[in-house]
Amino acid sequence: MGSMTHSQPQFDTIAIVGVGLIGGSIALAARQRGVCRHVVGVGRSSERLEQAQNHQLINSYETDIQSLKDVDLVVVCTPVNRIVKDVTDALQATPESTLVTDAGSVKASICQELLKVPGARSRFIGSHPLAGSHQSGFENADADLYVGRKCVVTPTPDSLQSLQASITFFWQALGMDVRSLTPEHHDRVLAFTSHLPHLAAAAVAELVKETAIDFAATGFRDTTRVAAGDPELWTAIFSENTEQVVSATDELIATLLQYRDALADGDLKEVQKLLQSAQRQRLLYEERHSIE
Amino acid sequence: MGSMTHSQPQFDTIAIVGVGLIGGSIALAARQRGVCRHVVGVGRSSERLEQAQNHQLINSYETDIQSLKDVDLVVVCTPVNRIVKDVTDALQATPESTLVTDAGSVKASICQELLKVPGARSRFIGSHPLAGSHQSGFENADADLYVGRKCVVTPTPDSLQSLQASITFFWQALGMDVRSLTPEHHDRVLAFTSHLPHLAAAAVAELVKETAIDFAATGFRDTTRVAAGDPELWTAIFSENTEQVVSATDELIATLLQYRDALADGDLKEVQKLLQSAQRQRLLYEERHSIE
Repeated sequence: MGSMTHSQPQFDTIAIVGVGLIGGSIALAARQRGVCRHVVGVGRSSERLEQAQNHQLINSYETDIQSLKDVDLVVVCTPVNRIVKDVTDALQATPESTLVTDAGSVKASICQELLKVPGARSRFIGSHPLAGSHQSGFENADADLYVGRKCVVTPTPDSLQSLQASITFFWQALGMDVRSLTPEHHDRVLAFTSHLPHLAAAAVAELVKETAIDFAATGFRDTTRVAAGDPELWTAIFSENTEQVVSATDELIATLLQYRDALADGDLKEVQKLLQSAQRQRLLYEERHSIE
Repeated sequence: MGSMTHSQPQFDTIAIVGVGLIGGSIALAARQRGVCRHVVGVGRSSERLEQAQNHQLINSYETDIQSLKDVDLVVVCTPVNRIVKDVTDALQATPESTLVTDAGSVKASICQELLKVPGARSRFIGSHPLAGSHQSGFENADADLYVGRKCVVTPTPDSLQSLQASITFFWQALGMDVRSLTPEHHDRVLAFTSHLPHLAAAAVAELVKETAIDFAATGFRDTTRVAAGDPELWTAIFSENTEQVVSATDELIATLLQYRDALADGDLKEVQKLLQSAQRQRLLYEERHSIE
């Protein structure tokens, strides 16, 4: 584990591929916390990267991953359907000593694909920092976005211990609580904690008629909030985790049918039992996350 | 329409049956805004009512609706499965000139039942103030809970115009934006804006495994918030609106199957189309409710 003081940063140079809200927040936090000396932003628009540099999020920029040379760590923050290509390019452009991770919200398909890339086993481990925002763009970057939040790193059985330690240290240095799960376990868990809630919110939002919208109150507001999310990004997330999302959706449909049949049969005891079980899980969540 | 100044309140005495968060907030707002001179609280526990009186929510109290005599308006704020009995008792206890309304979140079954009670047509109109809180108890009463929120009044075709005008004025005097819907229309709308979101939130909350809870982030937090609600209260709400809730649940299941089949078939265009349609409805909601 390296020192966290400003005089001895753990990494000299970090590259952030994709300088949006997530990449921008990581860049800002890494610089403010002295985790590295220099941040290179990588993106497609030199105009946007120039603006990010003027905002003091990054120290320099490249518009091509292939131009990356002397960096200690590359963090790929592009949408999930571009991560495999961007990590592959980063591994090819940089020397053996450069470590690579990502920030994608799906892991199994990405990690399986990347294990086929020569050198990936010793240089790449997937990550998923569990924090986001309904906002986008580096203009909304927040150095504290990740403080106190969980980050999942997803080593495979033959990942190097030292690689895992370095990636874990990086996220810890940003203030995160790091846990390790296999990529497959991560995707099963996230199907229920993130992907299914998104699907349910979207389905409920879609069903409300325009004339009914005026009468929607706080329950509708919270339950459907995430449905405002970018359809393209979420289509990519679902498609990278199809098997788990389909299976979770089947469980949701089965549970809704239990409610439906109990209601149609007038079996109010069963309805109340189902609601009690849901309330228990929600209160457990609130307790674990210190929500009042 | 009466004057809203303190010297000329519209009502002399108002009775609030059920002095919890909702009834307490109505009592507090009515007194602070000079909508009436005197508030009588009605409940089962004289101890709790005494406390509510010490909190200056009510001026006096009764533990039996039958003891109500000289009141201008009775607002029944008890759970939905007790409203028919409490309104009936209030109609029987008070003179012809006393108006009665309620604050229940289901209307058709209640209003249909009450139309059979002698005198109800000229003295009772249902109401549903669309505001609540995850808190309960008069200790959390808030005089501003209803300010700027919508209230639905649900007259039937033969409700007296003057009765509707008085009830509408009462909620407007508390700061509410009052709309009129038939009881059946109200229940169809609320099935989609409130009851279905609750069911979906509960089903999603129930499915999360205990070991996954640590990894739940903001999407789970918001989507499942209402699942913390009282199972007994919500069982009563669903059971009073069974037909509409069953039909809305069937629509939700059909929509989830569309997602499920599109994902299983790898039809990402269809998935994105569904998410876009959901996003449109959510953004329309945000626009109408001025949510950023």
